[in-house]
Amino acid sequence: MKESRYLIRTDLALETQERCEKAGSSIRGLYRDEEQMSGDIKVTTVQIDTENAAKTMGKPKGTYITIEAPQMEEEDGSYHRDIAEELAKRITMLLPWENTVDRPWNILIVGLGNREVTPDALGPKVVDNLYVTRHIIREYGKYAFGDANTCRISAIAPGVMGQTGMECVEILKGIVSETRPDLVVTVDALAARSTKRLGRTIQLTNTGITPGSGVGNHRNALNKESLGVPVVSIGVPTVVDAATIVMDAMSEYVEELPEELLSPKLYGMFVTPKNIDDSVKQVSFLISEALHIAFLGNREEKEHI
Amino acid sequence: MKESRYLIRTDLALETQERCEKAGSSIRGLYRDEEQMSGDIKVTTVQIDTENAAKTMGKPKGTYITIEAPQMEEEDGSYHRDIAEELAKRITMLLPWENTVDRPWNILIVGLGNREVTPDALGPKVVDNLYVTRHIIREYGKYAFGDANTCRISAIAPGVMGQTGMECVEILKGIVSETRPDLVVTVDALAARSTKRLGRTIQLTNTGITPGSGVGNHRNALNKESLGVPVVSIGVPTVVDAATIVMDAMSEYVEELPEELLSPKLYGMFVTPKNIDDSVKQVSFLISEALHIAFLGNREEKEHI
Amino acid sequence: MKESRYLIRTDLALETQERCEKAGSSIRGLYRDEEQMSGDIKVTTVQIDTENAAKTMGKPKGTYITIEAPQMEEEDGSYHRDIAEELAKRITMLLPWENTVDRPWNILIVGLGNREVTPDALGPKVVDNLYVTRHIIREYGKYAFGDANTCRISAIAPGVMGQTGMECVEILKGIVSETRPDLVVTVDALAARSTKRLGRTIQLTNTGITPGSGVGNHRNALNKESLGVPVVSIGVPTVVDAATIVMDAMSEYVEELPEELLSPKLYGMFVTPKNIDDSVKQVSFLISEALHIAFLGNREEKEHI
Amino acid sequence: MKESRYLIRTDLALETQERCEKAGSSIRGLYRDEEQMSGDIKVTTVQIDTENAAKTMGKPKGTYITIEAPQMEEEDGSYHRDIAEELAKRITMLLPWENTVDRPWNILIVGLGNREVTPDALGPKVVDNLYVTRHIIREYGKYAFGDANTCRISAIAPGVMGQTGMECVEILKGIVSETRPDLVVTVDALAARSTKRLGRTIQLTNTGITPGSGVGNHRNALNKESLGVPVVSIGVPTVVDAATIVMDAMSEYVEELPEELLSPKLYGMFVTPKNIDDSVKQVSFLISEALHIAFLGNREEKEHI
Repeated sequence: MKESRYLIRTDLALETQERCEKAGSSIRGLYRDEEQMSGDIKVTTVQIDTENAAKTMGKPKGTYITIEAPQMEEEDGSYHRDIAEELAKRITMLLPWENTVDRPWNILIVGLGNREVTPDALGPKVVDNLYVTRHIIREYGKYAFGDANTCRISAIAPGVMGQTGMECVEILKGIVSETRPDLVVTVDALAARSTKRLGRTIQLTNTGITPGSGVGNHRNALNKESLGVPVVSIGVPTVVDAATIVMDAMSEYVEELPEELLSPKLYGMFVTPKNIDDSVKQVSFLISEALHIAFLGNREEKEHI
Repeated sequence: MKESRYLIRTDLALETQERCEKAGSSIRGLYRDEEQMSGDIKVTTVQIDTENAAKTMGKPKGTYITIEAPQMEEEDGSYHRDIAEELAKRITMLLPWENTVDRPWNILIVGLGNREVTPDALGPKVVDNLYVTRHIIREYGKYAFGDANTCRISAIAPGVMGQTGMECVEILKGIVSETRPDLVVTVDALAARSTKRLGRTIQLTNTGITPGSGVGNHRNALNKESLGVPVVSIGVPTVVDAATIVMDAMSEYVEELPEELLSPKLYGMFVTPKNIDDSVKQVSFLISEALHIAFLGNREEKEHI
Repeated sequence: MKESRYLIRTDLALETQERCEKAGSSIRGLYRDEEQMSGDIKVTTVQIDTENAAKTMGKPKGTYITIEAPQMEEEDGSYHRDIAEELAKRITMLLPWENTVDRPWNILIVGLGNREVTPDALGPKVVDNLYVTRHIIREYGKYAFGDANTCRISAIAPGVMGQTGMECVEILKGIVSETRPDLVVTVDALAARSTKRLGRTIQLTNTGITPGSGVGNHRNALNKESLGVPVVSIGVPTVVDAATIVMDAMSEYVEELPEELLSPKLYGMFVTPKNIDDSVKQVSFLISEALHIAFLGNREEKEHI
Repeated sequence: MKESRYLIRTDLALETQERCEKAGSSIRGLYRDEEQMSGDIKVTTVQIDTENAAKTMGKPKGTYITIEAPQMEEEDGSYHRDIAEELAKRITMLLPWENTVDRPWNILIVGLGNREVTPDALGPKVVDNLYVTRHIIREYGKYAFGDANTCRISAIAPGVMGQTGMECVEILKGIVSETRPDLVVTVDALAARSTKRLGRTIQLTNTGITPGSGVGNHRNALNKESLGVPVVSIGVPTVVDAATIVMDAMSEYVEELPEELLSPKLYGMFVTPKNIDDSVKQVSFLISEALHIAFLGNREEKEHI
């Protein structure tokens, strides 16, 4: 299945693991765990523990948590709140420190992607919704928000290489070395294999992100190696590669897949749903709410101080 | 090929005609003419003259002019100017009056589509770029722009039904009956069959537009019957239906096409290129320039008065 | 004080009434009532009952309700909810019908103003946040949302005359005559006299709106006379006229005000706070939430059905 | 006039110099030169040569070039081209190198300001219009654009501190140390003293920019000292401080100016014209065109290669 490995692309570890499983291969060092939460929320953890499993999966070692919720993209305050709290809890569990020490951390949140292309605008939109605190705490001290527990949040949406002429990793390395955050959190649009996961799935990982995901190929690897600080990545599939959708459909009917024929025609094309604007809007609110819960305590209570 | 007729959708009369031709059917009342202009600009005219040809084509009787130019979506002032002038000339030729009488007309330009979804934002972006004159001429008289030849241009981007709760035709009928334009010009994103036509093709027609085109199904028919005034429609293919792309790819390998399997999965999905933001931006400048040339004379010279 | 009446402009009936009061004039047919609600929310009702009072005030007869809340422009879910509920209650009280009959009404919500100028973008932003239902109820019937009590909401942001070449009243008359709503609700940015009211005041009135308010002079009167249906107007002061701010400051030092000198220099200029983007964003969420409460029942509960 | 010096703020060296001149002070080390170009374009150069002159002016030593053109904010291709060429010529003259050597330089263009507040969006909008080349030349080599003379352009709109929690200088120091440009060009909205200069004036300086300008106080000094590379700054006045406009108006009538009274009321307020959206749009096109001429040669010819 060499061809397929090339063409059937997904940024979701969950889907890659399912594919391996379907192919009948049992891989040592690769684990999957499912939890069913209330409100139709399903949390799946894929753990890649060995270099060999990483190689087979084509993804770095680490933990990949997928939160699936069928109504994620609909506008609904209380339901969103449940998912946001689940996401906040999982973010906290992925942090490289014990939660009780060290706070308040200095967190740089990075909204990756192109603000001008709707399915790629997720990261920039999350940054638009964020409440940043670093400059306030720097000016008014650590009790600026009433307790000493509020993280110092900074945020940036650096744009994509076609807009800036720079790799994201260049921009972020510079900012990290200058502002010295303890943690970088990236938010990005991803490509899934299956259309049914679009807009209703969030992947959370402590591996950093690897190039070539999402709508455009808008970055080189952003991880602890390249940035020098731990990286937690939040991603939401908003597109399927055009080649993937065609190959996937054809694989049920054709044995030998003429990869050469497909790729030039479909290269640089993606598939996305017609209501992608609503979907990105709602999920971006949800993610910024989760980040507020995780790093500011309850944002709403904070405000009253 | 009943299934294909259903699934392989295109808003371009050109592509439907090519398909009919390929299928070997010679249709009475259907004509095609090609002209090669300088600068790699190709103009194809498809004429549907009989009800029977209209039925076979699935498109209303009338003239469909397609301007193809490979570098249309690139940023290049002088090349754009050439295409804009060609487009302006063709718009003028499609007008339901002799050009020399009746001017200045009262023209309502309508930017259809959803501003929040990049490939569907073409119409609203053209409206953003337009120089409207109706209110100025109403206030300062017909010599407001130095000669009596400047058309009274008004413009609106009414949004899509999911945003307004109203059909476009309802909104426009009301506005037309209130402001009484002589002509409505619509601008909209279209769906093509072939990805290679995306962003480099403009279709111009005097038939009005029929429902179900473009990214969303954002209108009922807008034409002389529904609006009471002649309608000239400008469309640019920016997407391919996901079902179309899959069916098209598969048709080379599979005889019997399992339509039932495909449609639920791909319904409401579209395929679009990754650089769609640049493409829509450049083509929207080009179309507004053409409208300025056609209805304001040379906009740049106007300004100096 | 002829000059001042010209230069000191405000769209808030509250401020005009205060001005009259300060000038010592007791006006028959003009009433003011204040209520202090919980959470620092203050509701002031100005009632203009006679033609004479209307003439003195320079505003049409009717009810003007002003909701003031100091933290309105800050991001705070629960506090916003309190204001939104107060606003929803007052909207319901202003409706021209008994609340218990006639529902579900057909409501057209109009976001006035220019989306491209931050302090004038309030109306369009409210429309962006709205959940429209008219097309859904038309397609799926009056139980589409589980009960027969959900209003049919449609919405439009028509743009300003400089963008469309048409008066708002022309656009809306057409749409109203075509879609026949029972009520039009307008949302618009207003000009206040006092900078301290910007972004923390909402005015609600059943008089329609009169020309010349807000950032631009973007409309002719929109009221029952011009549109043929009752009009409820929601306005938020986001700017102060530049001439007003200067005259107001000078009036404490100079007796005779050289109106002639001021006006040309300051004409077409407005004053607005530097954080106007946050302010408009937060208040637009608040108003759309109030409209959802008033016309959809509780939006969040609706969603679950 | 101590108070006034505090309150009457301008980012234009031209206006400060005029003010000093009016006050009758002849300052050693301060020079002014005017040139009248064709097409109503006026170029004024203010040169601050001594520390003493810098102190009196409240601006760093260096060259300040002001281009004034009354129709700058109007949409007019050929007139804009003239101004853009004049601006490009002046940018080239300000560069810290002999023009004939060293090319192609590596240029980082920075769009300062807040994209969400119309008069502060100039910088981000210029970046949106730019054609960046750095990544293309890095990938395809120095002949990627047909000659070896095309500069490597990168660009970023870093946002303001209220959005990022970081000073612009922190973000840019990091990016500069990582990507090592030879020159930083900043583009920003400025505050003028006089409303008549808004939208029709461009200031160009080799001194970097000092804090507190424009709409918000969105940066600390960006100059050779802080960034380590030469900085050329392009600024366009789009606002007048509210306090400035009041003080200026009052100064003709009142001797003693009660600064204390004014400042709290007007602090954080600015004055801007109602057509600021058109103005910022047109001037941003003009500046990006000038940058293309200066650093890419003629952009339009480049494209054809």
